[in-house]
Amino acid sequence: MTDPMDLAARLFDGLAALSQDPPGVTRPSFSHQENAAHALLADCAADLGCTTTHDAAGHQYMTWPGADRDAPRVIVGSHVDTVAHGGNYDGAAGVVMGLAALALLRERDVRPSVDLCVMAIRAEELVWFPTPYCGSRMAFGLLDRDELTTLARSDTGRTLADHMREVGADPDALRAAGRTLDPATIAAFIEPHIEQGPVLEAAGEAVGIVTGIRGNLRYRHGTITGRWDHAGAVPREHRADAVRAGAALVVEVEDLWDAHDAAGEDFVATFGEFWTDPTMHGLTKVPGHVRFTLDMRSLDNALLWWADDALRGAARRIGEAHGVTIDLGAPTNAEPALMDERLMRLLEEGAAALGVPHRRMPSGGGHDCATFAGQGVPSAMLFVCNQNGSHNPDEAMRMEDFAAATRVLARTLEALL
Amino acid sequence: MTDPMDLAARLFDGLAALSQDPPGVTRPSFSHQENAAHALLADCAADLGCTTTHDAAGHQYMTWPGADRDAPRVIVGSHVDTVAHGGNYDGAAGVVMGLAALALLRERDVRPSVDLCVMAIRAEELVWFPTPYCGSRMAFGLLDRDELTTLARSDTGRTLADHMREVGADPDALRAAGRTLDPATIAAFIEPHIEQGPVLEAAGEAVGIVTGIRGNLRYRHGTITGRWDHAGAVPREHRADAVRAGAALVVEVEDLWDAHDAAGEDFVATFGEFWTDPTMHGLTKVPGHVRFTLDMRSLDNALLWWADDALRGAARRIGEAHGVTIDLGAPTNAEPALMDERLMRLLEEGAAALGVPHRRMPSGGGHDCATFAGQGVPSAMLFVCNQNGSHNPDEAMRMEDFAAATRVLARTLEALL
Repeated sequence: MTDPMDLAARLFDGLAALSQDPPGVTRPSFSHQENAAHALLADCAADLGCTTTHDAAGHQYMTWPGADRDAPRVIVGSHVDTVAHGGNYDGAAGVVMGLAALALLRERDVRPSVDLCVMAIRAEELVWFPTPYCGSRMAFGLLDRDELTTLARSDTGRTLADHMREVGADPDALRAAGRTLDPATIAAFIEPHIEQGPVLEAAGEAVGIVTGIRGNLRYRHGTITGRWDHAGAVPREHRADAVRAGAALVVEVEDLWDAHDAAGEDFVATFGEFWTDPTMHGLTKVPGHVRFTLDMRSLDNALLWWADDALRGAARRIGEAHGVTIDLGAPTNAEPALMDERLMRLLEEGAAALGVPHRRMPSGGGHDCATFAGQGVPSAMLFVCNQNGSHNPDEAMRMEDFAAATRVLARTLEALL
Repeated sequence: MTDPMDLAARLFDGLAALSQDPPGVTRPSFSHQENAAHALLADCAADLGCTTTHDAAGHQYMTWPGADRDAPRVIVGSHVDTVAHGGNYDGAAGVVMGLAALALLRERDVRPSVDLCVMAIRAEELVWFPTPYCGSRMAFGLLDRDELTTLARSDTGRTLADHMREVGADPDALRAAGRTLDPATIAAFIEPHIEQGPVLEAAGEAVGIVTGIRGNLRYRHGTITGRWDHAGAVPREHRADAVRAGAALVVEVEDLWDAHDAAGEDFVATFGEFWTDPTMHGLTKVPGHVRFTLDMRSLDNALLWWADDALRGAARRIGEAHGVTIDLGAPTNAEPALMDERLMRLLEEGAAALGVPHRRMPSGGGHDCATFAGQGVPSAMLFVCNQNGSHNPDEAMRMEDFAAATRVLARTLEALL
């Protein structure tokens, strides 16, 4: 019998080999590289006594049958697509860990009472089709039917339906069925994933038990409109300086953040874009216009809307004080997804029992797990310590951390099966 | 005898007609349009009994002879070049006012004891040749000799010497002579000019008596270098956010400005450019880099260097607090030029006696007058109320304000002649 960690190492090598695109790897959503990854995983699953099936949305289910085939099953899964020139771990590590944990359970001669299914999810990376969690939302019938033919892949310009057909999925059957996954048939969903930030690495901890996936409130088209003026000739009280007003707004959000931190409330905010127009601005011009974006995230959606209110008040007040108009534009809101308390406790108890350093932490980035949680499926995420962030060729992950996480996952699954 | 205001109106119409370039007017430095303007002014000067001469730098001197031809003369002057698609008043109004004041003095049968010279200065607008006060500095031998052949005009790419020759100036003679103006031969220099800001218009005052031309301390290549990170996954304490640090710096300069205002010290500051890179930034990225410019101006050069010191301290402190590097780059410094107290008082007494609403005020923008003051020539500037700023086709000026300023100038000249 293969050692589960040898199995994982071979899968990572195989995945890298079939999607090399220096620097890094590229596996677009609904691509032949994604298919090749599915095939590699299915081969391994067959060796582990699993049967592999596909649904109309193209998702791959590798199932280890339990005693009661009709009882709600346990799913471990993540996506296997990547961004262009991404790393080998974001997404794929979750599926590989599902198979490695399954191998570990088989090694221990565990006899599952219900099916354990390792799911390879399609189309999670937003760069290919411009809709969040495209693949998992399709499975639950949450994608607009029109979107099958209106969404175009960013690199080819061809439609989602077209790309689905190309890899053997069936958009027409999906449209007819409405959905391919019924939440009632899923007892639990667990998504292992590399941490995309530096928290575990900095703390020297192998795994993170995710408390929830932060929702966000986003302003994509913020503008500050003042007046372009002569930087020497126009005195302070006659200026309408968009940069000075914008700086005051950034500092105001900073103060808001301080207040939330002090109250122990989950909150992050990012002005990702903040810029005077290079075709207009100049050393000796009072800046008359600034464009900005603001991305606020929290596990508490009410807090985000409260922040929106505070922000609008600040924008009015600062605008008046500086003689400019601060227009936040219409926000978009994605609700937070809270993880299942029982699953979190099981993962935590597993880590504690195995002596694996761990912590509870929010997920700042979005994950398919949010879709499952939103459908009422008890859901959890297990983060693995990772170096150098994600979505880049330098993604790293120590195999010892991966092994520790796999043991925690296997122990948790044992309790669920 | 022509009414001096009719004369001025005809000159403005003539200047506009010979340099139309919709929207607005264009008279590049050392251009045929500038020459045509000189010719128009010389015709008018001849009618007023003046003799017109030119020097090797191309400046035009329209001289009304005084009783003592060898005594230091009084010069009234400004430039007649404009920015591209500029207005008809920035620069030219000063020369027209010189001739109108001269006409007024002739009307009153004033007999000057020394020469009164109205000077049409070449090449003041920085957009054409990239060196400040190109024309007036040339006259005093302050331009590097090499610059005659290394400076290229921004629109043609041809050298300064080439353009000088084309309009009848003589760069070789200038190089041989070193300078064409000797400060010892100038008793006083007065530059009338439209105000480039909104102060007089807002206050309902016709004229401003300039206390000095602000010096500046400029940072053209400021950068803030942090780290590009995932806006969701990286918590606050791990971020190196260039926009948040930059906003703190802008607010710090704002506080500095408050302190100078409270102390009654002359100071203005402008972050004219402040921008994340559009090819790098994004809604969900912690911004890792910001570029900015900072232009600080004051009548007090020591204060500018004190501000530089405060700024460097702030940059270090904010950089450390935010985990970023704030690099101000090397500053450039132009020293302030203070106006002559006796001339200011004469202008002020003239305005008071004539009932013309006026105020003392600094000049934020640079003017040739700074070159004369820097050479030890007793110098003054008289601002005329102007609407819509300068360097644009919408420059405006009420002829009644121009007339009031002309009366103030004539009265002051009478005291000097």
